[in-house]
Amino acid sequence: MSNTAGQVIRCRAAVAWEAGKPLVIEEVEVAPPQANEVRLKILFTSLCHTDVYFWEAKGQNPLFPRIYGHEAGGIVESVGEGVTDLKAGDHVLPVFTGECKDCAHCKSEESNMCDLLRINTDRGVMLNDGKSRFSIKGKPIYHFVGTSTFSEYTVVHVGCLAKINPSAPLDKVCVLSCGISTGLGATLNVAKPKKGSTVAVFGLGAVGLAAAEGARMSGASRIIGVDLNSSRFEEAKKFGVTEFVNPKEHKKPVQEVIAELTNGGVDRSIECTGNVEAMISAFECVHDGWGVAVLVGVPHKEAVFKTHPVNFLNERTLKGTFFGNYKPRTDIPSVVEKYMNKELELEKFITHRVPFSEINKAFEYMLKGEGLRCIINMEE
Amino acid sequence: MSNTAGQVIRCRAAVAWEAGKPLVIEEVEVAPPQANEVRLKILFTSLCHTDVYFWEAKGQNPLFPRIYGHEAGGIVESVGEGVTDLKAGDHVLPVFTGECKDCAHCKSEESNMCDLLRINTDRGVMLNDGKSRFSIKGKPIYHFVGTSTFSEYTVVHVGCLAKINPSAPLDKVCVLSCGISTGLGATLNVAKPKKGSTVAVFGLGAVGLAAAEGARMSGASRIIGVDLNSSRFEEAKKFGVTEFVNPKEHKKPVQEVIAELTNGGVDRSIECTGNVEAMISAFECVHDGWGVAVLVGVPHKEAVFKTHPVNFLNERTLKGTFFGNYKPRTDIPSVVEKYMNKELELEKFITHRVPFSEINKAFEYMLKGEGLRCIINMEE
Repeated sequence: MSNTAGQVIRCRAAVAWEAGKPLVIEEVEVAPPQANEVRLKILFTSLCHTDVYFWEAKGQNPLFPRIYGHEAGGIVESVGEGVTDLKAGDHVLPVFTGECKDCAHCKSEESNMCDLLRINTDRGVMLNDGKSRFSIKGKPIYHFVGTSTFSEYTVVHVGCLAKINPSAPLDKVCVLSCGISTGLGATLNVAKPKKGSTVAVFGLGAVGLAAAEGARMSGASRIIGVDLNSSRFEEAKKFGVTEFVNPKEHKKPVQEVIAELTNGGVDRSIECTGNVEAMISAFECVHDGWGVAVLVGVPHKEAVFKTHPVNFLNERTLKGTFFGNYKPRTDIPSVVEKYMNKELELEKFITHRVPFSEINKAFEYMLKGEGLRCIINMEE
Repeated sequence: MSNTAGQVIRCRAAVAWEAGKPLVIEEVEVAPPQANEVRLKILFTSLCHTDVYFWEAKGQNPLFPRIYGHEAGGIVESVGEGVTDLKAGDHVLPVFTGECKDCAHCKSEESNMCDLLRINTDRGVMLNDGKSRFSIKGKPIYHFVGTSTFSEYTVVHVGCLAKINPSAPLDKVCVLSCGISTGLGATLNVAKPKKGSTVAVFGLGAVGLAAAEGARMSGASRIIGVDLNSSRFEEAKKFGVTEFVNPKEHKKPVQEVIAELTNGGVDRSIECTGNVEAMISAFECVHDGWGVAVLVGVPHKEAVFKTHPVNFLNERTLKGTFFGNYKPRTDIPSVVEKYMNKELELEKFITHRVPFSEINKAFEYMLKGEGLRCIINMEE
């Protein structure tokens, strides 16, 4: 047991007081974990689009003040009642969605959409008592997706923590908490290209490049990157992308361009933009008879996917995935092992590093579309 | 060798001279098979909706005079040059689509959409020389989907013939040539429900009931039949259907009715109507996390499948199938064996029998929506 167990911890956190305004480093109080909760010390966190999207609060109910952050690596400080899987000192990755191990989804081999702990972006409190564990001078500060990793200490439901190999470097594997696993799993768990396959990846941001990395690891013979921004093509080569298509440079629909390049279509495609037109193209560019398209990007609320049903009847498959179909507790530790045994390369995703005191720089990089992942060192 | 080998055979055939007009039994000349062709004696044939659809010629280029028919069982009379897989006396089921065993589709484990022999409803001639093997007093009569089984003798490409167990009764297994295998394979090969699953079947005609039969064989715990015609429900019980939903009897969309009946959705659904609204319902009624919907019914040319992409992102899968994903030569013999070992029940699909001389009665039954399959005995 650490000597802080059972006590309120005072530490630094980056608080979002208002939508779209720079975060402010504040001293916060972090209450001890309650039943089925774990308090952890965050060592490294990174910034993901989802943090920025909810911080901008353009499309949802604003919930402020709030502590964002959900891609991170940390060490267990203390555990609440009933927690037997984790103990102080364990290395963990917090995940924005959970695994209760008890519901129909957790018991299904195929699903990771836990009924109890599925992502909830509207809830800013803990499940146990409907309250926050964060406060400033007694005033509660809201949680974000159950993780709130922009704080030196945070409290997370045990079902949202993956216990990982303690020798894994947290400043690198922290990126496996969200986006990289999402793209990687879309390829490895859902699209499942065979060795020698052709794969198209729509959207060459971090998630799309992780999908390409999965295709590279699977031994794909051709990986066709599709993006409206041709400047991304050079970087994408590091992730195994062999060919590039910028839809803006073609008069024909991109699905036709890809079909021509590949003698009728690719074996697999993975859509990582969330744009519904790209989803339609990603589906229609797979080969008849065996092609599988996987949707990863989150669409606009009013988006409608449209296609001629014959595209299905000609033996194409369309699937969607959430967090790459990884079950957070069961599967994420093995993704860390893929990095440890050098099957998966993570360094190339990490393009920036900043000290916690300069966390707002990470937001600036992302808003400018600069780089892939910015690691925030909580101890600096 | 039969003593007719190499000779023109004169025999009876039911000729469609005009769209929608009763067939006329005529004496036709059937030329010997050319390279990669087989001439067979048809013993039993049955009538399928596709015959009626093209005979009505409401939606396509009319091609007359023509000999329809594609569900049948027969015996090889003689073979053309290069045919080594079959010999006179072999029992075969002709199939409207083929398997060349040489193209990318045939070499793929997943596809049955052969590049060379895929169904072609516009072609009324043989591939080898672009000519018909049927004539009346020298005037050619068109083929239909490479089978033309409404004739005592017909010529078929070797790639469109499944060699089956000679002890299988042709008057029953002839229905495996098309519709029954299509529905059965949609369940067994594509939807693949596990034992204890819940399955919805849209459309309780022969194809849908074959899909239900597949669900019954798979050990589904609940099979929900969906049809606009409640009179079909009684018969459907024989095929394992346990519950019935008539969308006309509900104010809510049928996908919501099914979700309520099944605590969130069925594990698998199979759409056998071809109506695009039913396709959307069939997709949206499967459970998130693991549900798989399979499209079988052929849609209208201008139909558009529409859904919110979140329905995919919540880990649902949508697939289409053609001929139940069975490869005609490789797989159909094993479907016959399922009947022989009493796993698959075929008798219940056969509701009518007529002699060849009364083939037009089979059309009347189908146009009235009466029964499932009418077997036409070619020797009567």
